[in-house]
Amino acid sequence: MAQTQFAPLVETLRTLKLDMFNRDFLLTWERTDDEIKAVLTVAQLMNDLHKAGVSLRTFDTGLAISIFRDNSTRTRFSFASAANALGLGLSELDEEKSQIAHGETVRETANMISFLAEVIGIRDDMFLGEGNKYMREFGAAMQDGYEHGILHQRPSVVNLQCDVDHPTQALADLMQLKNTFGSLENLRGKKIAMTWAYSPSYGKPLSVPQGVIGLMSRFGMNVSLAYPEGYGLIPEVVEQAKKQSAQAGGTFEIVNSMEDAFKDADIVYPKSWAPFHVMQRRTELLNTNDKPGLKELEKECLANNAKFKNWECDEEKMKLTKKGEALYMHCLPADISGVSCEEGEVSKNVFEKYRLATYAEASYKPFVISSIIALTRLQDPAARMQQLVERGVLRSR
Amino acid sequence: MAQTQFAPLVETLRTLKLDMFNRDFLLTWERTDDEIKAVLTVAQLMNDLHKAGVSLRTFDTGLAISIFRDNSTRTRFSFASAANALGLGLSELDEEKSQIAHGETVRETANMISFLAEVIGIRDDMFLGEGNKYMREFGAAMQDGYEHGILHQRPSVVNLQCDVDHPTQALADLMQLKNTFGSLENLRGKKIAMTWAYSPSYGKPLSVPQGVIGLMSRFGMNVSLAYPEGYGLIPEVVEQAKKQSAQAGGTFEIVNSMEDAFKDADIVYPKSWAPFHVMQRRTELLNTNDKPGLKELEKECLANNAKFKNWECDEEKMKLTKKGEALYMHCLPADISGVSCEEGEVSKNVFEKYRLATYAEASYKPFVISSIIALTRLQDPAARMQQLVERGVLRSR
Amino acid sequence: MAQTQFAPLVETLRTLKLDMFNRDFLLTWERTDDEIKAVLTVAQLMNDLHKAGVSLRTFDTGLAISIFRDNSTRTRFSFASAANALGLGLSELDEEKSQIAHGETVRETANMISFLAEVIGIRDDMFLGEGNKYMREFGAAMQDGYEHGILHQRPSVVNLQCDVDHPTQALADLMQLKNTFGSLENLRGKKIAMTWAYSPSYGKPLSVPQGVIGLMSRFGMNVSLAYPEGYGLIPEVVEQAKKQSAQAGGTFEIVNSMEDAFKDADIVYPKSWAPFHVMQRRTELLNTNDKPGLKELEKECLANNAKFKNWECDEEKMKLTKKGEALYMHCLPADISGVSCEEGEVSKNVFEKYRLATYAEASYKPFVISSIIALTRLQDPAARMQQLVERGVLRSR
Repeated sequence: MAQTQFAPLVETLRTLKLDMFNRDFLLTWERTDDEIKAVLTVAQLMNDLHKAGVSLRTFDTGLAISIFRDNSTRTRFSFASAANALGLGLSELDEEKSQIAHGETVRETANMISFLAEVIGIRDDMFLGEGNKYMREFGAAMQDGYEHGILHQRPSVVNLQCDVDHPTQALADLMQLKNTFGSLENLRGKKIAMTWAYSPSYGKPLSVPQGVIGLMSRFGMNVSLAYPEGYGLIPEVVEQAKKQSAQAGGTFEIVNSMEDAFKDADIVYPKSWAPFHVMQRRTELLNTNDKPGLKELEKECLANNAKFKNWECDEEKMKLTKKGEALYMHCLPADISGVSCEEGEVSKNVFEKYRLATYAEASYKPFVISSIIALTRLQDPAARMQQLVERGVLRSR
Repeated sequence: MAQTQFAPLVETLRTLKLDMFNRDFLLTWERTDDEIKAVLTVAQLMNDLHKAGVSLRTFDTGLAISIFRDNSTRTRFSFASAANALGLGLSELDEEKSQIAHGETVRETANMISFLAEVIGIRDDMFLGEGNKYMREFGAAMQDGYEHGILHQRPSVVNLQCDVDHPTQALADLMQLKNTFGSLENLRGKKIAMTWAYSPSYGKPLSVPQGVIGLMSRFGMNVSLAYPEGYGLIPEVVEQAKKQSAQAGGTFEIVNSMEDAFKDADIVYPKSWAPFHVMQRRTELLNTNDKPGLKELEKECLANNAKFKNWECDEEKMKLTKKGEALYMHCLPADISGVSCEEGEVSKNVFEKYRLATYAEASYKPFVISSIIALTRLQDPAARMQQLVERGVLRSR
Repeated sequence: MAQTQFAPLVETLRTLKLDMFNRDFLLTWERTDDEIKAVLTVAQLMNDLHKAGVSLRTFDTGLAISIFRDNSTRTRFSFASAANALGLGLSELDEEKSQIAHGETVRETANMISFLAEVIGIRDDMFLGEGNKYMREFGAAMQDGYEHGILHQRPSVVNLQCDVDHPTQALADLMQLKNTFGSLENLRGKKIAMTWAYSPSYGKPLSVPQGVIGLMSRFGMNVSLAYPEGYGLIPEVVEQAKKQSAQAGGTFEIVNSMEDAFKDADIVYPKSWAPFHVMQRRTELLNTNDKPGLKELEKECLANNAKFKNWECDEEKMKLTKKGEALYMHCLPADISGVSCEEGEVSKNVFEKYRLATYAEASYKPFVISSIIALTRLQDPAARMQQLVERGVLRSR
C-alpha cells in the first residue's frame, strides 16, 4: 500500500492540540478549531483507508450503544457502520423494550448499560430543552460511575442529533465543503445560504440549520440565514454563530427572502424546519399530552407553512447564485417536489443535478462518527492512526 | 488438522468458471451450472470446516445488512449465522423504525445504508411482481453509486426469498439431495415430486415450489409438479423449468394428483402455496388496501383449499413412492396434522420419520448463504478458501 | 502487564473439579460447590483483566442468541456485553418478529436457530411452572440435534431468569458479598435478611428471592427470609434452601416481620415480589386469557400489598442491623420512595447511601455471564484463562 498517500494526514493530526480523550462530543462550538480539524483529518484518513480496502479496526472487543428517541435510517446506519469499522459490537437500547419506560433514572441506566461500552450514541431531538440536557446527564452519570470505580472506563457520549446541534451532520457537511472547495482555507469569503424551505410536513427539528450556522461561521464564510418571519432558530445559537463569524472575519446576516440569501451564494442549504416558538409550544403540549392542542397546533402550522410555498429551491432561484452554479446541500431525505411530495423543499431538476453530491455529503457521516469515537477513546490517536496505516490489514483477508 | 479432507473441494472450486464477483444473487436460473456447483462446493467446504471447529472468518470488519419485509426465523438466523461466521457485523433495516415508510426512494436508501456494507440480504415475498423487482432496483442503485464513486465497494444483494425464487432454500435442498444420493451426477433419472399440499392457512408464497422446479430441473431429474386445478405457479417459471429439463435430459410433467406425482418418486416435497391468480388478486387488493375485498378473498380461498384436504402426505401415499422409501423434504415449518394444526400438509408419522432429515436439509442454509457471500465478494474465492484451510484457525481459541 | 496479579485466580481454577463443558446452566443448586467457585473465580479474573484493559476474546466467531420473554435492560445488556467481550456476535430471537408465534415447536426452533451458535441466553419468568421447563426443553432439543449430527456443536443454555431461579443475579450478588467481606469463607456466620418489601406494582417474579436463598444458604450464612403472611415462595425452593443451610452449618428461618429479619443482620436484601399463590392464579388466568379475572386479581393484590406499606427499608429499620451498617443489596431497579414512586421498597436516604454499592453489585453480572459461557463452552477453561493472561492483548489496539 502506498503509505505516502496517508502520511500527510497523520502528520497534520500530530500537530493539533487536543483535549478530547475520555470526553463527550455534544456541540461543535464547545470544541476548539484544532479539535474540529482533528475530526476532519481522522475522518478523511479513515475514508481514504476504507476506499483502499484497509481495515480500520481499533478495538478487539467493546460495545457501541445507540439510543434513538426518534426515527432514523441514515444516522442509525452511520453509527452502526462506524462502530463496526472500528471493531465494536453494536447494541441498541430500545426504550420500548426496556424498563426505562417504567421510571428508571437516567443516572442508573447510564451506568447499567455501560460496564463494557466504549461509546454511547444518542439521538434525542424531539423536545426543545430536553435532548442536549439528557446527553449531559447521561455523560455526567457515567463520569460519576467511572470516578467511583463502578465503570472500568469512561465511555464517551456522541451527539447523534439533539434539539440544539446535529454535529455529525454539520461535520459531514463541512467535509463535503472542504473537498468541494479544496481546503478549509478556501472557504474563507465564500457565501453560504442556510435557508428555510417549504415542506408539507410539520415539526422538523431545528438542529440541522443550527448545526450548520454554528459550525460554518467559524471558517471566515459569509453566512446568510434566511427564513420567513416567525421561523427563527434558538436565539442563543444564533448569537453564538454571530460571535464566531465576527471572530473568524466572516459576515453573518439574517434575511427574510430565499432569493436574497441565494444571491451570489457559493453554497445553498435549503431545508425546512419548524419555528422555534412552535417547537416550544409543541414541547409543552407533548409534556401535558394535550392531543387536541397538538392537533390544533399542527393545523395552524401547516396552514402557516402553506403561505411560503414559494420557498422552494428551483432552477430560477439557482440562477441567482454565483455563476448559477452554487453547491446545493441537504442532509437527506429532501422533500422533492413531484417526487416525494407535491410541493416541497427543492424542485426535481435541481435535486437531480445535485443528487450525487448530496450522496457524497452523506457518505462522510460514518467516517465523521468513527473519527469522533477514535478521538474520544484513544489516548494517542496520531500514533494509533500511524499504526493503522503501517499495519495495512485488508478488510477482506 | 487433516487438510487432505478439504483439498478436493478447493480443487473442484478451482476448475469452475465463475462470473460472480461484485454481482447480485437473485435467481438460480440466472447462474451457470459452474456457478451453482461453486455455491455447493464452497457451502460444503464451509460446513465441513465448521464441523471441524475451524473459523470461516474472511472479513476483518464490514456490515451484512438484512431487510425483512416478511416474518422469518430460519432465514433470519441463517443470514445472521452466515454473516457472523465470515466476520461481518449484522445490521437490520427495520422499515418500521426507519424513515423509509415516509417516502424515501429505494435509490437513496440503497446508497445511504451501504457505505460500509459488504452484502444486503433481502426477503420480500408478499406481493407478486414486487419482490424481485425491488431487489434489482436496489442492486442497480448500489451499482450506480459505486460507479459514481459514492460507494467505495459494490455490496451484493442476496435474495433471501422473493415472489419468484427462494434460491438459498432451493440450494440447501439441492445440497441435501447431493449428500443423500452421493453426488449431483447421481440425481440424473431420479424422480422428484414437487406437490401442493393442504394447509389451513392462506397466502403462502409460490417461491419455494418455483425455486425447487427452477433448480432441480437442471440435473437430469424427472420433475413431477402436482397441484389441484387452479393452483398453478407463475407461467414463466414453469416454462423455464420445462426448458431446462429438456436441456438436461430429464422430464417435466404437471399432474393434478398427489398420488400420481408420488408414484415411484425418489423424492417428495409436499408443500402448500396459494394459487398464482389468487396472489395476483391479493396483490391488487393489498395495493388498494381493500380490506373487505381481502377478507372475502381469504374466505373464498380457505373454502377452496378445504376441498383438497386429501392432499396430505401420509403413510398411505408414501407407500406409492420408490420402495415406499422416498426422501421427504420440506423447507419448514411444516403444517403437521395433529401437531401444528388439525389437518395439514403431512401426517404426524411421516413427518416424525423424516424430522431429522428436514433438520439436516435446513442446516445447509447458513452455509449456502455464507458461500454466496464469499463468491460474490471475493475476487479469487479458491485462493481464499485454500487460505482458510491452511490457516486452520480454531473458532474458539 | 503484571501477570502475577492474575495467576492466583488461574491457579484456584485449576484445583476445581468441574463438569460444566457442553452443559446448561439453569439452577445454582444443580451445580457443585466447586462449580459455583469456578464461576466466581473466572468472573473475578475477567473483571480484573477487563479493568486492566485486556481483551477477553475467546472466540474468533460464533453467535450468542438471546430470547427475552419479558422486558429487560440490565440483563439484556449484561448478556450483550458478555457475548461481545468473548468475541461472539449477538442475535436476538424476537418472538413477535418470528414465526414462533405461529405454532412452531420448541424442538424445531431450538435446532433451527442454533446451527452456528455457542450459547442461548433465555429469560422467561412470567409464568410459574413454565420458564425453567422451557429452558430444559430447549436444551434437550439441542442435545438431541447434536447427538444426531444436526448441530456441529452443543450450545449451552444460560438461564437469564426463570420462574424458579435468577442464577446470574444471585451469583453477581454473591460476588458482591465475597468482595465486601473479603472471601466466601468470611461469609460463614453472617446474617442475611432476604425480605419482602412494599411496592406499588404487582406481579413481580419470585426468582430473585428464590435465587438468593437458594445460593446464600450454601455458605454457612444465617438466612432470614421475611415476608407478610401469604407472600410465600415456591415451597420446593424453600425446602432446598433449608436443606443446604443445615448441610453448610448455617441457619435458616422464616419470619413475618421486616424488623425481625433486620435485627443484627450483616446484609439486607429488601425486594418486592408477588405471593406464590397469586402467581399461580395469574398463570392460569393468563393461560385462559381471562382479562376481567386478571383485572380483578391485580386490584385485589394491590389492595393487599397496600396493607404492608410499612415494609419499607428506611433509616429506622437499618439501625436495627449490625452496628446499623448492614450492606444493603438490590437487583435494581429499586422502587425508591419519593423517587421512582410515592412509597416503595426503600427510602431515598438509604438507597442513596448504598447507591454505588448496588451499582457495583450489578457490575459483576456481565462477568458472571461471560464466566458461565466460558465454563460451559471451553473444554479446558483453566488453560484458556492462562492463555488470556499470557497473551495480554489490549482491547483497544
